Amino acid sequence: MKKPLLAALILASTSIAVNAATAFNDAKDAVDYRQSAFQLIRHNMADIGDMIKGDVAYDAARVTKRATALATLTTLPWEAFNVPGTESGGGDAKAAIWKNLQDFTSRADKFVADAQALHVAAQSGNEAEVRKAFGTFARNCKACHQEYKN
Amino acid sequence: MKKPLLAALILASTSIAVNAATAFNDAKDAVDYRQSAFQLIRHNMADIGDMIKGDVAYDAARVTKRATALATLTTLPWEAFNVPGTESGGGDAKAAIWKNLQDFTSRADKFVADAQALHVAAQSGNEAEVRKAFGTFARNCKACHQEYKN
Repeated sequence: MKKPLLAALILASTSIAVNAATAFNDAKDAVDYRQSAFQLIRHNMADIGDMIKGDVAYDAARVTKRATALATLTTLPWEAFNVPGTESGGGDAKAAIWKNLQDFTSRADKFVADAQALHVAAQSGNEAEVRKAFGTFARNCKACHQEYKN
Repeated sequence: MKKPLLAALILASTSIAVNAATAFNDAKDAVDYRQSAFQLIRHNMADIGDMIKGDVAYDAARVTKRATALATLTTLPWEAFNVPGTESGGGDAKAAIWKNLQDFTSRADKFVADAQALHVAAQSGNEAEVRKAFGTFARNCKACHQEYKN
């Protein structure tokens, strides 16, 4: 997803239009959606992390499979933050997200870009590049969680 | 994911190797993963369905966004069916899956292929092709659920 699209999506101010554009049935549906996306991101990320740490044998094809999934998965959660009522129903989501939507959106864009860079590194087959790209991806993950995740 | 890889993944008979290959912490982790994948598939599919039914205005770019997500998402749930203990912890998953793994895997392969065909149709911008590809995708979804989903 291109940056302007993502920003427009999450910052759109007309909630009826946003609901029509995202097709969530209600706030719970949206919260389930973003939590599901993060669950899949967590797993695919952890599997690459296990290979990088050496807990599991490094397998370039497996890294590419995970990075391919992450390149799509990282684009998914964001529309589900812009549904009325999800500020209080998110469990893990801090209210700070909606107080700092521009910062949050900018971090989301970075996250998507990091995943794309990881995907490119994985496709190159260069393990050093994968380690570097994964480090950047994981650091930004953690930094955003410190601000915005309970 | 190529068909032989998918079949090898779900039919692999050494459970320790499978766990190392899929990196699930335990059965619950695997069940959460496949449920999350189906939740995201359901939403992206329903949104295209709403546009095809006319409940939401047809938007070719939005269809392509959903179809792109589906092309990746449909490849994800299957590894999570081959984790010991998930036969009884799946909630929606019938035991028939593990009694008919070859049929289940073949349907999973078809599902992935249907999503790829939908993606190609979406990228063509031809609404009639999208409707046709979506119909095939949705029919096979439903047929598999009748056999294997509670």
